[in-house]
Amino acid sequence: MKIIDGNVVSPKGFKAWGNAVGLKKNKKDMAVIVSDVLCNGAGCFTTNVVKAAPVQWDMKNISNKIKGIVVNSGNANACTGKQGLKDAEDTAGKLAELTGVEAENVLVCSTGVIGVNLPMDIILNGVEKTYPKITDSEEGGNEAAEAIMTTDTYAKKAAVEIEIGGKTVTIGGMAKGSGMINPNMATMLCFITTDCAISSEMLNKALRASVEDTFNMISVDGDMSTNDTVLCIANGLAGNEEIKSENEDFEKFKEAVYYINKRLAMACADDGEGATKLIEARVTGARDKENARKMALSVVSSSLLKAAIFGEDANWGRVLCAMGYSGAEFDPMGVSIMFRSEKGEIKLMDKGTPIVFDEDTAAKILSAHKIYIDMILEEGNGEAVAWGCDLTYDYVKINGDYRS
Amino acid sequence: MKIIDGNVVSPKGFKAWGNAVGLKKNKKDMAVIVSDVLCNGAGCFTTNVVKAAPVQWDMKNISNKIKGIVVNSGNANACTGKQGLKDAEDTAGKLAELTGVEAENVLVCSTGVIGVNLPMDIILNGVEKTYPKITDSEEGGNEAAEAIMTTDTYAKKAAVEIEIGGKTVTIGGMAKGSGMINPNMATMLCFITTDCAISSEMLNKALRASVEDTFNMISVDGDMSTNDTVLCIANGLAGNEEIKSENEDFEKFKEAVYYINKRLAMACADDGEGATKLIEARVTGARDKENARKMALSVVSSSLLKAAIFGEDANWGRVLCAMGYSGAEFDPMGVSIMFRSEKGEIKLMDKGTPIVFDEDTAAKILSAHKIYIDMILEEGNGEAVAWGCDLTYDYVKINGDYRS
Repeated sequence: MKIIDGNVVSPKGFKAWGNAVGLKKNKKDMAVIVSDVLCNGAGCFTTNVVKAAPVQWDMKNISNKIKGIVVNSGNANACTGKQGLKDAEDTAGKLAELTGVEAENVLVCSTGVIGVNLPMDIILNGVEKTYPKITDSEEGGNEAAEAIMTTDTYAKKAAVEIEIGGKTVTIGGMAKGSGMINPNMATMLCFITTDCAISSEMLNKALRASVEDTFNMISVDGDMSTNDTVLCIANGLAGNEEIKSENEDFEKFKEAVYYINKRLAMACADDGEGATKLIEARVTGARDKENARKMALSVVSSSLLKAAIFGEDANWGRVLCAMGYSGAEFDPMGVSIMFRSEKGEIKLMDKGTPIVFDEDTAAKILSAHKIYIDMILEEGNGEAVAWGCDLTYDYVKINGDYRS
Repeated sequence: MKIIDGNVVSPKGFKAWGNAVGLKKNKKDMAVIVSDVLCNGAGCFTTNVVKAAPVQWDMKNISNKIKGIVVNSGNANACTGKQGLKDAEDTAGKLAELTGVEAENVLVCSTGVIGVNLPMDIILNGVEKTYPKITDSEEGGNEAAEAIMTTDTYAKKAAVEIEIGGKTVTIGGMAKGSGMINPNMATMLCFITTDCAISSEMLNKALRASVEDTFNMISVDGDMSTNDTVLCIANGLAGNEEIKSENEDFEKFKEAVYYINKRLAMACADDGEGATKLIEARVTGARDKENARKMALSVVSSSLLKAAIFGEDANWGRVLCAMGYSGAEFDPMGVSIMFRSEKGEIKLMDKGTPIVFDEDTAAKILSAHKIYIDMILEEGNGEAVAWGCDLTYDYVKINGDYRS
């Protein structure tokens, strides 16, 4: 696997652009991705009972052949009733019209304020203005990645190349942050493009497997949006023999998708609202993977632990406490806890017994940007990693501000 | 039921005191409650897998006859290994020695820093110094309520009188906040005393029923402590015929215990760390009670919603979103949402449809201290109320500070 400097237009046959169409004030707010040929699609969607209109549209149409995707920021088209569903369809219809396909071949995603119907004149004009600009030059993917940002402080992109049967297969991606946004509720969105020839079934398998261990293992504030979506479209233009089973090619492809998702998911955690630190919590030796996942996620979701990391306080008690209420089964008397960073490492608990530690060393370790928390158990082979960020004054500020 | 100005010494035959024994700097840190005669006991304890030593001690001994309770703040005696268990027993043993009972007849609770063994010389001297001062004058209960405080900004007390079979039965209580504390992890503790004659079985039933709807329905930061404990001891000195079944007397008693627990639980939410507002979230018309509970608790636990309330932002979208990921089953298209306070009320969503509302009116309503959020469904008779507080800069400050 070769990591390259790229984005959603890096794979063959994809074009994209990002534009300011007027949903937000003087900011890019619409991205369009189009494939030269129809793609197989796969998607993972929010499990929130309240699903935004575009999520409902995409869930219905993800098994169709996909030509392109329209994404808007500034308005989530969530809690918008029947009109919202029609608006999602009409948005898809507009790009379909321009690209010569049916609305059912176009996916749509929205992020931004909820409970307000999309201003469809702006949306439809926006698609018309944005579509002619799509390009397969790197700029196209970069503009698109910027246009989907909300409270994100930087655009999130990644790309890799792998070789399958002598052919170069490229996978590119972009995402926007998982923190909820000002002015209202927002969303984690991720888009992956690839020129790999792969069946819908295998594409779904590869996506689901990696989302489980990446986007489903990050927490910014524990709030799950109505719009969370990960989409992957594959147009087959790499010319490899189509992947139709879980063979060696599939494993290669899956690993590459995992890498892209991991990079983007970590960037979302790192760029969580108000965040100053990235936390990587790793559980090893748990009874099984499910128990490991519960503990790792519980730790990065704990407001108390997140506030302690912001304060650079080696508060291992909050780690053990969050493990304890995670719902996982484990013996607290077998737990060892370490804090690590590029500045060193320190063991704080050894098999259930607290260790007297040097506060200065701990403070130095915690002054780094990326903090690793290791939870070592001795009950089995269950492992999991979760990512999160610290809880800061700015989080409260961003989310406490008036919507206006 | 007559609400009286009282505390844990209001019921007949209870004495208490609170003292500064040296666990904290120049602050009260130990409370002792003793009954003239042995009591029946009942308790509800943290469900955290990691249980502090005093919790383990109390769970083992709660079914014994209880003479008294020793509470210390400043050190939680959690994650302290076998030594911690011995220290809990020795603490109980000291009050037992002074009152002429066995250690098994004394309960202990601790709150404060975790992972540090109790300084037993200070603890044992503390019990010796505090016990002689216990008194049944109101001051005794007030001092005790102060001594269990950690980051609480005010002491939490409540008392009521009811009449059972012509006898006056009194119930008194005190609690400390459910927010985690600086320097480390902390605890919600609640102590209820009563002179009611009631069997252990019925006392347990009454306590459990009310804790379910009170202390289990508050959230300050979603973190569940290793030490959370609610204890109720009944000495029978009111002289009523002992309550042994779920008769009319039991219902009266249960209602009174519910009132005490509700008052104290609301005070804990109101006085959450850094809190400036109390949130009361009420779900009606849910499919059943369990679904209603999930939605109400999810809403008061949402960092996003809590930050919005701090910012006095009528962000109903975050309410619907939190309902959506609560795990409850409901139809989003049947939900109505209202925000209320002493300054007015405003409907924000009507049966799934957002209502355009006046921002000035909303801001005025949200400027109050206590904010009611009503979620009205039309699916059944399930109802629940949960209490929480806003998420503020001070929460981050309190919990981000160094332990030192």
